[in-house]
Amino acid sequence: MAEGSDDIQALIALMARLPGLGPRSARRVVLHLIRKRSGQMTQLARLLESVATSSRECLTCGNITDRDTCAICADPARANGEICVVEDVADLWALERGHAFRGRYHILGGTLSALDEIGPEDLGIPALIDRIRRDNIREVILALNATVEGQTTAHYILDALPDSNVTVTGLAQGVPIGGELDYLDDGTISAALRARRRF
Amino acid sequence: MAEGSDDIQALIALMARLPGLGPRSARRVVLHLIRKRSGQMTQLARLLESVATSSRECLTCGNITDRDTCAICADPARANGEICVVEDVADLWALERGHAFRGRYHILGGTLSALDEIGPEDLGIPALIDRIRRDNIREVILALNATVEGQTTAHYILDALPDSNVTVTGLAQGVPIGGELDYLDDGTISAALRARRRF
Ligand SMILES: [Zn+2]
Ligand SMILES: [Zn+2]
Repeated sequence: MAEGSDDIQALIALMARLPGLGPRSARRVVLHLIRKRSGQMTQLARLLESVATSSRECLTCGNITDRDTCAICADPARANGEICVVEDVADLWALERGHAFRGRYHILGGTLSALDEIGPEDLGIPALIDRIRRDNIREVILALNATVEGQTTAHYILDALPDSNVTVTGLAQGVPIGGELDYLDDGTISAALRARRRF
Repeated sequence: MAEGSDDIQALIALMARLPGLGPRSARRVVLHLIRKRSGQMTQLARLLESVATSSRECLTCGNITDRDTCAICADPARANGEICVVEDVADLWALERGHAFRGRYHILGGTLSALDEIGPEDLGIPALIDRIRRDNIREVILALNATVEGQTTAHYILDALPDSNVTVTGLAQGVPIGGELDYLDDGTISAALRARRRF
């Protein structure tokens, strides 16, 4: 037992399985927490316990929340006529950090996949169609990943949408702000060139 | 409040301050834990709480333990005549993973530093000298970092040791196993060349 106690070893092993960490970073984090006598470890334990107990999915949009309806769905200041469809909660968080969208969301929780037997129901697509009809949505933004799976799913939703006056849009593709051409993949450069615009 | 709840935001902020993490990895880890419905988060909370409560320093060597005397100091199978002096608990862990040393340890908890006002007492060097005398230590291995601070501290300990038949050694310097010369710093290459040996 090199690492101090059974609990320390178990803690390192558990942390090492977290995404982006590994045995080496897990050991560093645990040592750091043990050294900090300021109670950071206890605070972390308390927050993990609280989040584990209270986190659930918003019944309307699928966002992670500690209530039936998430803060975004409940916010009266946000536009009701726009739904932004994303694959994942992480995408919603990223868009919110951008402060560019002030409407509502729908989180699919994945993409369609015949191989993994993920169908439209698993992604809440029928519920999304209902919501678009019921809430008089004017614009649906399909903010799905620019991957084959993301785009296949976007096209499925496009076809499934009711024939109405709802506008369906997608995110623009191009060079990221601050992006150096040299570091971009070829697909992005081609897409940015095709979508070129006048100054 | 983009990230679901106040507690989720606080958890991400706390995790983002851990070594090797940042806001991005903290968000990924927290989302991963929320998604895992297997209770990984509760388990992590429980272990953090337990380690925070029970961790302390071994009264003999300074190792992190949940007892007065750590498992290494208490192990009757380990050699009593050898003490390996390390800067940090992380170094002890690294040496134990190597399974090459079967003696006892002394953890300094840092290096001598006039600037930071860290003197011999802060590193437990007088206690180390006492221990060497009292326990009839035959060999002291100064396994300090190959930095200026580490080597200054090693030389201080060397001078402070009693004039007796105790052998003082240091770790060999050279090319790491699997190390490619091209990727090594010049100092390591020079040291390895100076310490070259016959095949
Ligand atoms: Zn919601
Ligand atoms: Zn000990």
